[in-house]
Amino acid sequence: MSLPLSGLTVLDLTHVLAGPFCALTLADLGARVIKVERPGSGDDTRAFPPFKDGKSGYFAAINHSKKSIALDLKKEADRAIFDRLLARADVLLENFRPGVLDRLGYGWTDVHAANPALVYGSVSGYGQTGPDARRPAYDMIAQARGGVMSVTGEPGRGPVRAGASVGDIAAGMYLTQGVLAALYDRQRTGLGRRVDVSMLDSQLAILEHALAITTVTGKAPGPTGSRHPSIAPFESFQASDGFFVIAAGNDVLFEKLCLVLDLPVADDPRFATNAARVTNVRLLKRLIEAVTLDQTRAHWVAKLTAAGVPASQIQSLDQVLKDPQIAARNMVVDVLDRNGRAAFKAAGNPIKLSDAEDRTTRAPAPELDGNRGEILRWLDEG
Amino acid sequence: MSLPLSGLTVLDLTHVLAGPFCALTLADLGARVIKVERPGSGDDTRAFPPFKDGKSGYFAAINHSKKSIALDLKKEADRAIFDRLLARADVLLENFRPGVLDRLGYGWTDVHAANPALVYGSVSGYGQTGPDARRPAYDMIAQARGGVMSVTGEPGRGPVRAGASVGDIAAGMYLTQGVLAALYDRQRTGLGRRVDVSMLDSQLAILEHALAITTVTGKAPGPTGSRHPSIAPFESFQASDGFFVIAAGNDVLFEKLCLVLDLPVADDPRFATNAARVTNVRLLKRLIEAVTLDQTRAHWVAKLTAAGVPASQIQSLDQVLKDPQIAARNMVVDVLDRNGRAAFKAAGNPIKLSDAEDRTTRAPAPELDGNRGEILRWLDEG
Repeated sequence: MSLPLSGLTVLDLTHVLAGPFCALTLADLGARVIKVERPGSGDDTRAFPPFKDGKSGYFAAINHSKKSIALDLKKEADRAIFDRLLARADVLLENFRPGVLDRLGYGWTDVHAANPALVYGSVSGYGQTGPDARRPAYDMIAQARGGVMSVTGEPGRGPVRAGASVGDIAAGMYLTQGVLAALYDRQRTGLGRRVDVSMLDSQLAILEHALAITTVTGKAPGPTGSRHPSIAPFESFQASDGFFVIAAGNDVLFEKLCLVLDLPVADDPRFATNAARVTNVRLLKRLIEAVTLDQTRAHWVAKLTAAGVPASQIQSLDQVLKDPQIAARNMVVDVLDRNGRAAFKAAGNPIKLSDAEDRTTRAPAPELDGNRGEILRWLDEG
Repeated sequence: MSLPLSGLTVLDLTHVLAGPFCALTLADLGARVIKVERPGSGDDTRAFPPFKDGKSGYFAAINHSKKSIALDLKKEADRAIFDRLLARADVLLENFRPGVLDRLGYGWTDVHAANPALVYGSVSGYGQTGPDARRPAYDMIAQARGGVMSVTGEPGRGPVRAGASVGDIAAGMYLTQGVLAALYDRQRTGLGRRVDVSMLDSQLAILEHALAITTVTGKAPGPTGSRHPSIAPFESFQASDGFFVIAAGNDVLFEKLCLVLDLPVADDPRFATNAARVTNVRLLKRLIEAVTLDQTRAHWVAKLTAAGVPASQIQSLDQVLKDPQIAARNMVVDVLDRNGRAAFKAAGNPIKLSDAEDRTTRAPAPELDGNRGEILRWLDEG
């Protein structure tokens, strides 16, 4: 049993979310991640709520399993340590504004010359090139400028953001993919590559449907609430005690839905094909809700699921964490403290691999500079 | 100049979005992707609108650069071809319901025995294990059951889905990461692995903030509209002609914002720290909008940006596609037709790599079974 990236060392200069999320996946896949933080306060997320016993649960959820050393890259003595770490690292991750690391003498060109095998992964708001390369960005800005907000929410009302931080996370995941591809590549060539990922680019890359609609029809789509833009019935509906979703994606499923609801409209020309159902989607929704308002969400989800019609409760996070399927998949793990006791929770690794242990616990999120001694000893042994 | 996955062959049995999105990234990174489709109608998305000259722009946006052969895995002659393809492939991707490929004799155990170096990537609604493994899922269901819908939308109103298909795409991206890690790993061991990714698991994995809040406070978060749950001011605001976002993440940026708006509240104890601003967020929003309603979005975004305060228009997809930063990053590419003419548009590759050409065009989305001859000749040469 082994993890695919065991034996690799990732030197992680990133902070907040996009970069640390990438480093987290690399750690879950077996790499040793050394988080290099600025002295004093370290990664900003150490100060993000919620707190438990004075420690951030947010920081723990995404920085468990990593080691920390605090280094000031403007100080000679710390640079000397960083140079030694660079020489031993397989991957460097950074999310500074483009130009910052170059001015410190640790830009791609300098590092590649000193360590040609190193994979150099950069994530930033807008990328290393282009007119806005040096601007800062945040998840909110990426979702707004990148088009995700324009298709999220209810028609006719103000824009809303996707509640998951997709602006940061899509970029973090593309960085991970680029780094892994570069690691594969260097085994053949002996040479590392620079990976350059932009939060803005990443938003467009995950909007394939909106891109297709806009470029073919000439008209950009807007938000559609909970409704799928081109399949019906495929949205949320009201039950007696709240909302649930039905995803009846074809005529067969729609017929089964009509049977379960005792709503004899399967052959009605206004609803007999998907195209017709989409045309008459508001009437269809009101007809369905006329029935579903009479019973609970649990009632309808059970009956529809039993009949083979995809349906689901709209689960809040406490429900998700207790979902039997999530538990069976080991998707909620314990982040230990330094005494080996469960201190925080984190998501499990969604990449399940054969011949790899899928652990139920994670090593602690590090104290700021908490692994300095261990790291310096490792350098000395090297 | 080279792409990291050049020389690799991916045999792609997936259809619709999660799997094809993974295969798309592998193609953009240089792999040759052979899409094995069912005879007759092929991938369902060939029938998804919007259409141009009878072809789906949706299918083109996510299936460009791939080759297609139509095979019925229940027919002897087609299985013989598939077996020969398997023997030459580096990666197999599939998104059937767990059990389907096993019954056809192409499950992980069978395939691994015949081709121990093959990387076998599976994505499904719920994963290969657990009580719901054999249930179908869709993006809508994953977003609902996985918690994303519970944190998206406006407080007090019905749930909405994230407008990007994050239910499918997060899973597709985790599949890509698992496949790439397995490819790296097999160069050391000579052995492939099975990668098992679930749409439901992937939703929880991207909800790090909601998970931390729920597990530390005991209370699951709800939707917050466009507002960041723990930083203020960090949301959308109304201008004279629509909404825009401001992301003033700390006290320094808030002071600059107050100067630009001529709103002398930076030292007001109700707004002097982030915690205070979060407490008084609704009052703060109304004060800011009292000013911003007087001028256009473009006016405010320009002034705030010039002052160093992150702000952005909420761009619709047509605006995104014309964004100068997006253009500078080559993020809108032409999908050619068989005559080499630009037929459709697709997102560029957001993974920018050194020493790799970042092309402005893509090879066509294949006709169903359109590359049979070429593929069979390749097998014969093998």
